[in-house]
Amino acid sequence: MTVHTGRHFLQIPGPTNVPDRVLRAMDMPTLDHRGPEFAELGFEVLAAMQRMFRTKQPVIIYPSSGTGAWEAAIVNALAPADKVLMCETGQFAVLWRGIAAKFKLDVDFVPGDWRHGADVDQIESRLAADREHKIKAVMIVHNETSTGCVTPPLEVRKALDRVKHPALLMVDTISGLGSLEYEHDSWGIDVSVAGSQKGLMLPPGLGFNAVSERALAAAKANPGMRSYWDWQEVINFNKAGTFPYTPATNLLMGLKEAVRMLEEEGLENVFARHKRHSAATRSAMKVWGLEPQCQDANAHSPALTGVRMPDGHDADNFRKVVLENYDMSLGTGLNKIKGKVFRIGHIGHFNDLMLMGTLSGVEMGLDLANVPHRGGGVLAAMEVLKSRDVVSMTKAAVA
Amino acid sequence: MTVHTGRHFLQIPGPTNVPDRVLRAMDMPTLDHRGPEFAELGFEVLAAMQRMFRTKQPVIIYPSSGTGAWEAAIVNALAPADKVLMCETGQFAVLWRGIAAKFKLDVDFVPGDWRHGADVDQIESRLAADREHKIKAVMIVHNETSTGCVTPPLEVRKALDRVKHPALLMVDTISGLGSLEYEHDSWGIDVSVAGSQKGLMLPPGLGFNAVSERALAAAKANPGMRSYWDWQEVINFNKAGTFPYTPATNLLMGLKEAVRMLEEEGLENVFARHKRHSAATRSAMKVWGLEPQCQDANAHSPALTGVRMPDGHDADNFRKVVLENYDMSLGTGLNKIKGKVFRIGHIGHFNDLMLMGTLSGVEMGLDLANVPHRGGGVLAAMEVLKSRDVVSMTKAAVA
Amino acid sequence: MTVHTGRHFLQIPGPTNVPDRVLRAMDMPTLDHRGPEFAELGFEVLAAMQRMFRTKQPVIIYPSSGTGAWEAAIVNALAPADKVLMCETGQFAVLWRGIAAKFKLDVDFVPGDWRHGADVDQIESRLAADREHKIKAVMIVHNETSTGCVTPPLEVRKALDRVKHPALLMVDTISGLGSLEYEHDSWGIDVSVAGSQKGLMLPPGLGFNAVSERALAAAKANPGMRSYWDWQEVINFNKAGTFPYTPATNLLMGLKEAVRMLEEEGLENVFARHKRHSAATRSAMKVWGLEPQCQDANAHSPALTGVRMPDGHDADNFRKVVLENYDMSLGTGLNKIKGKVFRIGHIGHFNDLMLMGTLSGVEMGLDLANVPHRGGGVLAAMEVLKSRDVVSMTKAAVA
Amino acid sequence: MTVHTGRHFLQIPGPTNVPDRVLRAMDMPTLDHRGPEFAELGFEVLAAMQRMFRTKQPVIIYPSSGTGAWEAAIVNALAPADKVLMCETGQFAVLWRGIAAKFKLDVDFVPGDWRHGADVDQIESRLAADREHKIKAVMIVHNETSTGCVTPPLEVRKALDRVKHPALLMVDTISGLGSLEYEHDSWGIDVSVAGSQKGLMLPPGLGFNAVSERALAAAKANPGMRSYWDWQEVINFNKAGTFPYTPATNLLMGLKEAVRMLEEEGLENVFARHKRHSAATRSAMKVWGLEPQCQDANAHSPALTGVRMPDGHDADNFRKVVLENYDMSLGTGLNKIKGKVFRIGHIGHFNDLMLMGTLSGVEMGLDLANVPHRGGGVLAAMEVLKSRDVVSMTKAAVA
Repeated sequence: MTVHTGRHFLQIPGPTNVPDRVLRAMDMPTLDHRGPEFAELGFEVLAAMQRMFRTKQPVIIYPSSGTGAWEAAIVNALAPADKVLMCETGQFAVLWRGIAAKFKLDVDFVPGDWRHGADVDQIESRLAADREHKIKAVMIVHNETSTGCVTPPLEVRKALDRVKHPALLMVDTISGLGSLEYEHDSWGIDVSVAGSQKGLMLPPGLGFNAVSERALAAAKANPGMRSYWDWQEVINFNKAGTFPYTPATNLLMGLKEAVRMLEEEGLENVFARHKRHSAATRSAMKVWGLEPQCQDANAHSPALTGVRMPDGHDADNFRKVVLENYDMSLGTGLNKIKGKVFRIGHIGHFNDLMLMGTLSGVEMGLDLANVPHRGGGVLAAMEVLKSRDVVSMTKAAVA
Repeated sequence: MTVHTGRHFLQIPGPTNVPDRVLRAMDMPTLDHRGPEFAELGFEVLAAMQRMFRTKQPVIIYPSSGTGAWEAAIVNALAPADKVLMCETGQFAVLWRGIAAKFKLDVDFVPGDWRHGADVDQIESRLAADREHKIKAVMIVHNETSTGCVTPPLEVRKALDRVKHPALLMVDTISGLGSLEYEHDSWGIDVSVAGSQKGLMLPPGLGFNAVSERALAAAKANPGMRSYWDWQEVINFNKAGTFPYTPATNLLMGLKEAVRMLEEEGLENVFARHKRHSAATRSAMKVWGLEPQCQDANAHSPALTGVRMPDGHDADNFRKVVLENYDMSLGTGLNKIKGKVFRIGHIGHFNDLMLMGTLSGVEMGLDLANVPHRGGGVLAAMEVLKSRDVVSMTKAAVA
Repeated sequence: MTVHTGRHFLQIPGPTNVPDRVLRAMDMPTLDHRGPEFAELGFEVLAAMQRMFRTKQPVIIYPSSGTGAWEAAIVNALAPADKVLMCETGQFAVLWRGIAAKFKLDVDFVPGDWRHGADVDQIESRLAADREHKIKAVMIVHNETSTGCVTPPLEVRKALDRVKHPALLMVDTISGLGSLEYEHDSWGIDVSVAGSQKGLMLPPGLGFNAVSERALAAAKANPGMRSYWDWQEVINFNKAGTFPYTPATNLLMGLKEAVRMLEEEGLENVFARHKRHSAATRSAMKVWGLEPQCQDANAHSPALTGVRMPDGHDADNFRKVVLENYDMSLGTGLNKIKGKVFRIGHIGHFNDLMLMGTLSGVEMGLDLANVPHRGGGVLAAMEVLKSRDVVSMTKAAVA
Repeated sequence: MTVHTGRHFLQIPGPTNVPDRVLRAMDMPTLDHRGPEFAELGFEVLAAMQRMFRTKQPVIIYPSSGTGAWEAAIVNALAPADKVLMCETGQFAVLWRGIAAKFKLDVDFVPGDWRHGADVDQIESRLAADREHKIKAVMIVHNETSTGCVTPPLEVRKALDRVKHPALLMVDTISGLGSLEYEHDSWGIDVSVAGSQKGLMLPPGLGFNAVSERALAAAKANPGMRSYWDWQEVINFNKAGTFPYTPATNLLMGLKEAVRMLEEEGLENVFARHKRHSAATRSAMKVWGLEPQCQDANAHSPALTGVRMPDGHDADNFRKVVLENYDMSLGTGLNKIKGKVFRIGHIGHFNDLMLMGTLSGVEMGLDLANVPHRGGGVLAAMEVLKSRDVVSMTKAAVA
């Protein structure tokens, strides 16, 4: 077996590379979750997460995966037989729908081709048709991690408003938060769902819900059984900076440091950086002659790029070649695009030269795996990265 | 404000002191949860937890608190209206019952005085009276962290067997696992519940269920709604060393190291050590003239000691004095014994001199807080610790 | 072999327990020692060390042991055949003298019994007798780590001044700096020698010289061969925040954090804490019926206590018993007091409960090793630690 | 100021990137340097360093910089007025000569143009001319870190043997050890000098001497003053696994792990990797149209590449552009090539994608700094890295 040296390139679209400062902040003695020192930490991370979600409403932090935070959104705000509108943007939409089905929601699943964001026109027309307001929630995935397509939550909010539909707007921004703009309050989101291991630059283990007053009211009126995920109980404890159970203290210690780092950089700079890296990646892809999984030029994710393999070539074989030869993990194609797509994560704690290492690994891997392509993608990427004019570059790259 | 120096004494009965080796094992880059390296880790920690629970049955590892693992036990194996038998051994029994109630179980709650383990005779007689086998589960707390009383699960199993009752036996061993003997298989436990932040010497953030074939069969037959906690789905993924969601990778990296440390020491030595420290603590308490919360000499917990305050003295004021003057966190009295009891944790990554620092802090704190007591408890504790004959010492101390 | 659990008690008088914050500050990527980020660090640690030595004069930081810093003092300021006055306060004075001899200094070694600080009267009379000022330097050990006796440098300065002797005053404060008062400038010290692994709470690897203008002038006039230790070359580079070689970057990163911690606590509090712990230790020792190695009540070191064994009992056997049974490292007796003395370090990152663990380990070890003693030393120590009135306690304890 | 994200690219030719495993091994509690646990560590690292130097002779480990290890070589084996032969291969040869001068050696300094290794013919003819064997040592730099030229020590040994000259052969392999082949014993080296912060992948702070029997004999006969650097004293202590002073314990803990990693990879693989990265770097440089500082195709260093700037362009301005825009540290030109040369380190804990990030940063930086060059160097580098046939690639690249 080859012993790899140097740093592994973890270029899946999450978990992302965790900064040393965050790992070191977690590598400290655990503390009394009922003592004064913890309460201070509790208040700090709750406030930090409000700033990240851009909300003055409560944020609930769970020791859980992102799937737990999905479930939390459902069991608090919705009850069996409730009708909800979801859109098949990709695998994560499919998975969330699966959870909805397990909790016996009546899902109207707008079909999709996994190559676009949600069809907002379809959403609007179905809402308009729902005169009796049976639809209790519209549930969308902000940044579809399986495809690299973005659905703008604000557009969905506008659609709801245009047809004056009272459904709750629930948004999975698990791989969106911290990598692209997100505005829980001003976009009128009712439930935002996030996780620690993406743009927040933490190891996995924390799930988040940000909840509007309307969502809280819906929960209060909801007789469904719940305990661990119950928003209100957590919110009650949070008033004292504590939790109804022993929280994942060390991950919270890391969370405090991670948000500090994002704010040191400035969220607008964080978002611009992700856009630049996405543009550079697409420039390389174009030269290689490979096709993006996302077919909508306006919907490319700043966080990751899904790349289609030429027919007859297996994406997972390619990924294996890259892993073995260049010690880089790329994201696999999920579910119905398995083998057809690989994904390049450019999200989280990242910079230009890490991206160039990443794209070089892809270009060399295409060659080693005998995937037909044109060389020189890395040169195109460098053209983007040499420019400091992010906006124009971004436009050029997606043209 | 006083700036404390040296190491904080975290002597609550969990979270416990995390070994440097474990913290350092977690302080490593996150990895691809779908890659070959992770699968290896996945298999290792699953096998390690089987050894800890002493089972060949599946162990499910959740990114969750211990309360999550309680809920998991309930939503998998039981359905609304199911009758269950629980025993009021203390606050954690009360909390688990609260969750049972939220999931609409019909709880027969055997009353208790919070100063003994569960009343096994009562359990047996109630089971015997249940001719129609309406009781679907007996749910007990192995090591009641709020009081320091142990209930022996094997005795409950024997009671079930004597009356030939088919109810499932569910045991919360959250603060028991890794600190006192536990035998999931040979004691005939159906569902064992544990957490990471006690005897397993990890930060909080992982919950565990060990499940028997009968429990799995009950789950399979159970139509209740569940997703995150669903045993079967996790078990299916675990066959490949993976999880149905992004697992808490870095906590799992720590878990591997923590179990390695426990096994290097030898589980029997780990258990003997906890007993020794418990005996030493009780010797000190006896000299101080303070009363143990646990009134059954055969039920004293090896993991913690609940200590009653003399009337008219507030345990939390005492704890505050200790925290401010000696930088030691002691466990608070919970619920109905708030202010009346404090708890000394001697669980996890611990040794004789750490215990002596702990007991010295208690003895000095009693003095500073003007709590009537006799000095010299620490001398009595040293008598126990000087002896290498654990068994006789343990006996002597509890006499 | 016994596997120890919990934290090792490292109670030798250096290396001392390194705080987690300091270890974590060192556990970060190395940086370019010629880049702007390093220069910032360089300036910070140089300024920090000036504050620690209480000097506005240059401080030189060597990648070296303390013995290296001894040698640096000699080869810069003194030349072969130079006469120097030293005092046999213990093993470290003997070792420094050995280095002086290797560099062919003519050492007048005032004899001592290893149970007192330097005899200032003797120093004064020998200086007074040196009419021709042949003595170029008086070299004393501030805190004799082998015995636990302090020599006050200010008294030596006063003696020099009284007889108007121009000799340089060189002080080894390796185990003094950061644990007891030290004033390089206002005490008129010419060369101060220190190391990282004692009161500065760092791992070993850095040596320090603080140098007066007179010392620098002596060095300038000194034709002796030197390179690595040459003050002036380092000082020249330090003006730009850099070093004439690749410095021990990560230890410097730790140094910055360590001084920050000491200053957060406040140096006066740091010194008072060490005095308190020393007083408590002596109180215990008195009860045990053991004798301090230091026979001068005014000279007891705040940093460590040397304890004499009763005749016929071997200190190293006792230390072995303590190490094996209680996982505590105590300091050995050095050179001519080997086997007769053990040393308890209460220096560095330390607190009351760590001290009580330490003293308990000593008391239990005395028993296990069959060393005649009275029990209850720990109770006497607690009497000291319960008091917040440090000064009176210190007085009481040494009475 | 720009806040950088992601990992800094530390591509100076030392200090090099320290592996997480090594940093974590150092991030552990310090231990008693006189206790049994330390002795075990002492023996392990001494044996490990013998394997690294490929010697059965003693290796001395100093808490020092590499310059300290240079000085150690001189003060042990040579005395003032001793004649030595050195070669002006670059700045580090100049610096070592400076130390030799400070210790009053009579240096015959063979001139060089800083663009080749040492002139072995010159060495041989000067040795041949030294009929009276006044030359006591030939002192060469194995891998000249300031230029990227290698001098093969074995060729120098052969020259010595051909003329039957008894001079000691001293080799500075500070940036060679662990990055290219080195054979202390079989190449007949008398004193090898190394440091921790290069191929050994540690932070700076340790210096090394490996010494032959002849060197030890020379030291024994050498009346020169020395203490800290004295080989024999260290060797005497090392017999018990200890040191004559408090060693830099935590760096030694890291050293043990670093050598373990190098041996897991296999030293021959380590060397081949460095050669591959060097070949890839030169391929890129050739396309850029830039000239290597090293003009001898057989002498290119596997550890670093010195690159000459086109006339009229300042290397340090270029380095500044790269640091500010791409967060990468490149090595500066030293002394007389300041501003004319920059250096790319590809030494230590490194891999293909880190190299591609590095070379991309250089290529983009050349553009941003308006340095005339051809683009596409990175493509040429990828051609090398795609090949698994190291030897042929290396040949191709240097052609």
